[in-house]
Amino acid sequence: MNELQSLLHQVAENASEADMALLKDFLIAIQKKQQNTSTTYLNAVLQMDIQFEQDTCIVTFPITPLSFNTFDKPHGGIIATVMDNAMGYLVNKDLRPEGKGAVTTNMNIHYVKAATQESLIATASYLHKGRQTLVLECSVTQPDGKRIAHATGSFFVINPPDSSK
Amino acid sequence: MNELQSLLHQVAENASEADMALLKDFLIAIQKKQQNTSTTYLNAVLQMDIQFEQDTCIVTFPITPLSFNTFDKPHGGIIATVMDNAMGYLVNKDLRPEGKGAVTTNMNIHYVKAATQESLIATASYLHKGRQTLVLECSVTQPDGKRIAHATGSFFVINPPDSSK
Amino acid sequence: MNELQSLLHQVAENASEADMALLKDFLIAIQKKQQNTSTTYLNAVLQMDIQFEQDTCIVTFPITPLSFNTFDKPHGGIIATVMDNAMGYLVNKDLRPEGKGAVTTNMNIHYVKAATQESLIATASYLHKGRQTLVLECSVTQPDGKRIAHATGSFFVINPPDSSK
Amino acid sequence: MNELQSLLHQVAENASEADMALLKDFLIAIQKKQQNTSTTYLNAVLQMDIQFEQDTCIVTFPITPLSFNTFDKPHGGIIATVMDNAMGYLVNKDLRPEGKGAVTTNMNIHYVKAATQESLIATASYLHKGRQTLVLECSVTQPDGKRIAHATGSFFVINPPDSSK
Repeated sequence: MNELQSLLHQVAENASEADMALLKDFLIAIQKKQQNTSTTYLNAVLQMDIQFEQDTCIVTFPITPLSFNTFDKPHGGIIATVMDNAMGYLVNKDLRPEGKGAVTTNMNIHYVKAATQESLIATASYLHKGRQTLVLECSVTQPDGKRIAHATGSFFVINPPDSSK
Repeated sequence: MNELQSLLHQVAENASEADMALLKDFLIAIQKKQQNTSTTYLNAVLQMDIQFEQDTCIVTFPITPLSFNTFDKPHGGIIATVMDNAMGYLVNKDLRPEGKGAVTTNMNIHYVKAATQESLIATASYLHKGRQTLVLECSVTQPDGKRIAHATGSFFVINPPDSSK
Repeated sequence: MNELQSLLHQVAENASEADMALLKDFLIAIQKKQQNTSTTYLNAVLQMDIQFEQDTCIVTFPITPLSFNTFDKPHGGIIATVMDNAMGYLVNKDLRPEGKGAVTTNMNIHYVKAATQESLIATASYLHKGRQTLVLECSVTQPDGKRIAHATGSFFVINPPDSSK
Repeated sequence: MNELQSLLHQVAENASEADMALLKDFLIAIQKKQQNTSTTYLNAVLQMDIQFEQDTCIVTFPITPLSFNTFDKPHGGIIATVMDNAMGYLVNKDLRPEGKGAVTTNMNIHYVKAATQESLIATASYLHKGRQTLVLECSVTQPDGKRIAHATGSFFVINPPDSSK
């Protein structure tokens, strides 16, 4: 703890406003993970809000400097992370009652526009529900309705879900 | 700063070993960004080591609980992030002397095996160098040589690289 | 012509019903090409019916033994051909008034079900209309409404369309 | 047969050189199918030559007007057909001794250059051999060595191969 505090002091001394905001975000993320409000560190850190509506999963997340690529735009990989989650959550929610889960085997992403707003919304839905393989699509839009990216993904059903552990 | 310290205290009180390790990693990441050892927060946080060898870019990164999905395996989106970086860095390094850059327009990823080792290596190389469009491939392997994922990506040349800001 | 007639006789002697039907289809296809009812041999041979409705292109085609793979199902490549056409026709119809055209740079296809009916319907629509790049999606369904395949494609605008000749 | 002959006459009267060449090709293709030199009409019609070398499958095929798109270039779907075959033949050859087969579940294709030569060579090899899923890649090049397209594909193992009939 002393080591952490001393590190925190060093970091704080040279900190920009963005540095401080990200640090605060990160501490809150760890806290959410501790309180089980978030199932993974990654979800907590990316501040994903997850909603299910009918046959879709909608994940909303704020754009912070943590997600920036070298052009100060949301990194394609972060967008991929959120799309993979939106599709994967939908699939796993639906398979859970059967004691099953699913893992991503393929994801294809078209990036169509650099994001310019402060949050993004990923909406996932089914293209095909097979016994062994599920295919979904996911669009990422801005609050102004503009599409930023579109993905399709293949998921392979595993049984039980944690067999790979 | 007081707010941060008090938050740090709360977090530390309930912290698991993983929580503490991630916090330390995060503070070091911010420090690297402050010292410009890392160009983005994301690279620093994911602890990416970037090397160029001939016509390839090799990005190595450790698997920490920060990257875990709900099955405690490296998240496909984090793997996508690192692959996008390996391909994007190679492309942008080669275009920089001409005052140009490139953005990802398409990425397709096959996830073939759940990772079981403590670090991963993404190796990117060219499939095609066009005037406007570049196509690359990237494989992610473990230190034991096993392939975890394979991606191909399309990149569109922009001029100047920061025109989208 | 004599050579053709003699070849036709040889083929006809050993011909199955399918052989004869395909031969007839092929001759009719050549005729359609001669009469400019079809722009390419391939469209004529695959008997594609092309319709535009609002912002979609709908291509319908019969399944004949010509399209069969080794499992006597429509070949994935033939399905890809028709999807590429449906997307490409939509794009090129819309770009023609500007004296432009577009070529496919990427196509990603999920095959979700083996076809069991006698015709297939490919429906293409836009996901994104950019200045240089267009992204479309295309679903292939049976008359009974079941989805057989789903594709997304990237198209790159060229000017003039026949510049590559 | 009389109907066919009369149709042949009509077609021949108005036939261009390309029409006549394609007709001859088609008759020879039917003949190959009759003699079981070719397993499918499609392979015979596209004149695919299939070779296995070590862990690859190499399919060579001539470019004829039958394969042309509206720009008089080999259609992306025909290139997809041949790539799907090269990957699928490799997979099915290797699974046959076990009494199994595999079907394409996903194919992603980057088209990088319009073909300018008279034949194309598709070379398929493995990226991953799993128990249920196989991932392959395939490059299409010209005799001059230039790459025209690159694909990756996922194949799902089925048992027995003709179970879907």
